[in-house]
Amino acid sequence: MDKLHSLYYFLDLAGTFAFALSGATAARKRNLDLFGICALAFTVACGGGIIRDLCIGAIPPAGLTNWPYLVVALIAAGLTVHFYSVVQLLTRPVLVFDAVGLSLFAVTGAEKALHYGHNGEVAVLLGITTAVGGGVIRDVLLNRVPVILEKEIYASAALIGALIVVLGNYFKWISADWVAIIALTICFTLRILALHYRWNLPTPANDKRKSDK
Amino acid sequence: MDKLHSLYYFLDLAGTFAFALSGATAARKRNLDLFGICALAFTVACGGGIIRDLCIGAIPPAGLTNWPYLVVALIAAGLTVHFYSVVQLLTRPVLVFDAVGLSLFAVTGAEKALHYGHNGEVAVLLGITTAVGGGVIRDVLLNRVPVILEKEIYASAALIGALIVVLGNYFKWISADWVAIIALTICFTLRILALHYRWNLPTPANDKRKSDK
Amino acid sequence: MDKLHSLYYFLDLAGTFAFALSGATAARKRNLDLFGICALAFTVACGGGIIRDLCIGAIPPAGLTNWPYLVVALIAAGLTVHFYSVVQLLTRPVLVFDAVGLSLFAVTGAEKALHYGHNGEVAVLLGITTAVGGGVIRDVLLNRVPVILEKEIYASAALIGALIVVLGNYFKWISADWVAIIALTICFTLRILALHYRWNLPTPANDKRKSDK
Repeated sequence: MDKLHSLYYFLDLAGTFAFALSGATAARKRNLDLFGICALAFTVACGGGIIRDLCIGAIPPAGLTNWPYLVVALIAAGLTVHFYSVVQLLTRPVLVFDAVGLSLFAVTGAEKALHYGHNGEVAVLLGITTAVGGGVIRDVLLNRVPVILEKEIYASAALIGALIVVLGNYFKWISADWVAIIALTICFTLRILALHYRWNLPTPANDKRKSDK
Repeated sequence: MDKLHSLYYFLDLAGTFAFALSGATAARKRNLDLFGICALAFTVACGGGIIRDLCIGAIPPAGLTNWPYLVVALIAAGLTVHFYSVVQLLTRPVLVFDAVGLSLFAVTGAEKALHYGHNGEVAVLLGITTAVGGGVIRDVLLNRVPVILEKEIYASAALIGALIVVLGNYFKWISADWVAIIALTICFTLRILALHYRWNLPTPANDKRKSDK
Repeated sequence: MDKLHSLYYFLDLAGTFAFALSGATAARKRNLDLFGICALAFTVACGGGIIRDLCIGAIPPAGLTNWPYLVVALIAAGLTVHFYSVVQLLTRPVLVFDAVGLSLFAVTGAEKALHYGHNGEVAVLLGITTAVGGGVIRDVLLNRVPVILEKEIYASAALIGALIVVLGNYFKWISADWVAIIALTICFTLRILALHYRWNLPTPANDKRKSDK
């Protein structure tokens, strides 16, 4: 299973890169300066994991102490600054890597919480937090309502991924590695399908208004 | 005193419910989707307590690990989605339960900080944080200045409740249970009176402008 | 070196005071009430240090447990409420003390992280966080994009101060006290020069637009 873990590590860095790119491009669009772009790239990439680690007592948070994450975030920031037109062409592949990051962060976030001895509720809630926390901080810093609270199947895909990890760990029908692979696949597929078919969760306020007509 | 603790538990869940309802209705008014409404209900109900637990070293935070809070928050979210017109009629009773939650969170927040061996300053600051932290996160996520910073006797009622707990614990004139009852009653009464008579704290910038005329 | 530590302590409180004043004046300008002004004064003064302490496992955070910080923040809030016209005249000296606070928080933040046994990356990231975290929370609460992400040499001065501490601690060419003095001086000088000559970091989005013309 060593190859599997190398693959994980590669996907983890690829997801981090995609998240950092989303932070850096959002920062550039809002006219932030060089420091702001780097700070947002890092925050989106590592913010969710840092909150998770604070909540499970993993001190210091992995995002602060493992330099590859910082380096990947800074590379993403540098690309956004110097090759912005290229980065803009990459929108589609970046969305795919973003979906990779989403699935991987949800699954590994839930696994880490379980590994630290916490219960299934903590694991599901922190799996979601790992996956979407960075994006929420990005939107708060850029002074707008977090997009994941308004529309799109994004956090709910992370919820399902984390839930599968917790259920798999509870029933132990198959090995933890297989549980992770299934959770990753379902979360990733759900997100990609949602992007392709523009699925959204219902927005109760709008439904109400429509039914009023 | 067993009955007292059952009463506490009931009031705690009632306060959590009122807080969650305030998060869910605010989310619905801003057109958030189903996930956003659930997320805000949970955040308002448990956000303050989670920050308190991180600061006193109670890992994992109680809000993440005790399922009744999550269930109560999701029920509040479900009611807001499906029975919005009923929820809107409940504004007045919800304000009363919100005041219950405010007092109870301030008092139990301060007690928990003392129980973990921290000093009076930590207890007062975290008592206030427990009571108002969730509402502050709600307003930040909905992209507006937190209402408790702008007007109303709300955080200041929490401050007085937490302060009574700390003073009672310091002087030990009466039992901790009586201190809690007195602190709860004063904080709750202050909040209800402030609501009824529309008391506000002074706003220095406005006072200045008025005295200029 | 006892005198040095007394000087540190005085500068620490002076920096805290300047930070609190910036929070209180920003709060007053946005028409916050008395509680809001005190809360922002305290948050700007202690917010960055609280995040740092949560991340390095220093529980409870120093900002919550040492009353001098709270007292200094409340004095700054009181002055802003009652002697606003005087405070406005103090803009220039306050900017100097703010630069003192910035340098001192960056340097002591990095030192504290190293002292708790964490690596250089954690120390640099948390040195910056200590110095600018309070100001970021202030801007988030006041519902605007944090000014340090948009322009000015501020966070980058903190970065350089924290970096010098980490390099000095790694190479150990000179004593830790001297490293701190050099880091403080360079960070402070950089900030003051940036203020005087209105230096800003490049803003990539603007540069692009200019080069388009």
